[in-house]
Amino acid sequence: MNERLILHEHAASGNCYKVRLTAAQVGISLERREYDIMKGETRTPEFLAGVDANGRIPVLQVGDRFLPESNAACFFLADGSALIPADPFDRADMLRWMFWEQYHHEPNIATLRFWLRYIGIDALGEARRLQLVDKRVAGLAALELMDRHLARRNWFVGDHMSIADICLFAYTHVADEADFDLELYPAVIRWIERIMLDPRYVPFEG
Amino acid sequence: MNERLILHEHAASGNCYKVRLTAAQVGISLERREYDIMKGETRTPEFLAGVDANGRIPVLQVGDRFLPESNAACFFLADGSALIPADPFDRADMLRWMFWEQYHHEPNIATLRFWLRYIGIDALGEARRLQLVDKRVAGLAALELMDRHLARRNWFVGDHMSIADICLFAYTHVADEADFDLELYPAVIRWIERIMLDPRYVPFEG
Repeated sequence: MNERLILHEHAASGNCYKVRLTAAQVGISLERREYDIMKGETRTPEFLAGVDANGRIPVLQVGDRFLPESNAACFFLADGSALIPADPFDRADMLRWMFWEQYHHEPNIATLRFWLRYIGIDALGEARRLQLVDKRVAGLAALELMDRHLARRNWFVGDHMSIADICLFAYTHVADEADFDLELYPAVIRWIERIMLDPRYVPFEG
Repeated sequence: MNERLILHEHAASGNCYKVRLTAAQVGISLERREYDIMKGETRTPEFLAGVDANGRIPVLQVGDRFLPESNAACFFLADGSALIPADPFDRADMLRWMFWEQYHHEPNIATLRFWLRYIGIDALGEARRLQLVDKRVAGLAALELMDRHLARRNWFVGDHMSIADICLFAYTHVADEADFDLELYPAVIRWIERIMLDPRYVPFEG
């Protein structure tokens, strides 16, 4: 990369961690800018006008351009590396797991973690409290699906790590913080250990 | 494509329509298999074992392999075509809008359409009823963001249609069925017309 890369982030966010872990895997260094989402620092007029009109982190700044959405930032950093399969079906299948992560995994497991750990169950409004059971059921189904998939293979797609593994790892390896019992998913546990033992692994700061 | 392509779908689903519209744009013909999601036809043991363990449509069958997640299926069909930008930043930015669609657009606009049009407001449970306002606010924010983005450009990324446009078009052009007033978003209206006037356009059957 010839352009300056700046990660606009909140270090305790698993979505931001995905981008850091991808960068570490491909040996790219990122400058980091921290925003406190609990203080609304991504909803200021400056942030909305200059970084992301959607008011979210992470955003990967590439020179003077801005790339929101964690999984898209991972794709950009990993483009051309072994973290993205060369085979067209495998590449699309990797994206399948990344879209699945954002639709079926993150809104359940990451959201429960945020609600239970950062907001607190007593401070949840009625609308959120009534979603706890549905999100729990969907989160359990997501972990079960991952465990069955990994029972017969080491990585989500192909025979080595891809950014699908990185994107799914971020909130899975801290799912206990959302009161999920990972011991029920032995293939997931082995896959988590496989990623953590990689020499280019960097830990979550959440 | 040398392999047989079968779209496992529910024609009234905008997510399935994305895949058909992408195929039409690149001149690929798909066999189609219809499932009635209201009758649970994607949750049968046969479907879960043979098509998608996640129990969802669309699934694009490529020979004897199966690719769930609408946006991943679009990527597979469009890979190598002008619908996917060659520039690495633009390609990642296209994926940014596709991830944004699945996280910030579809769960609000498509879900409200499904709840209001297919389930009916009187049949919604308490947990869903309490989400109506949040989903309405988030859906309005999504349309507003799209309108501001399109005010200065014809397409979401670069200077011609990409699969980001197709994926966002699917539920945007029927947002009135979720009680959103598209007349409030003139740049979105012009973009919808641009897509519908394309000679390779095929209409939604929803």
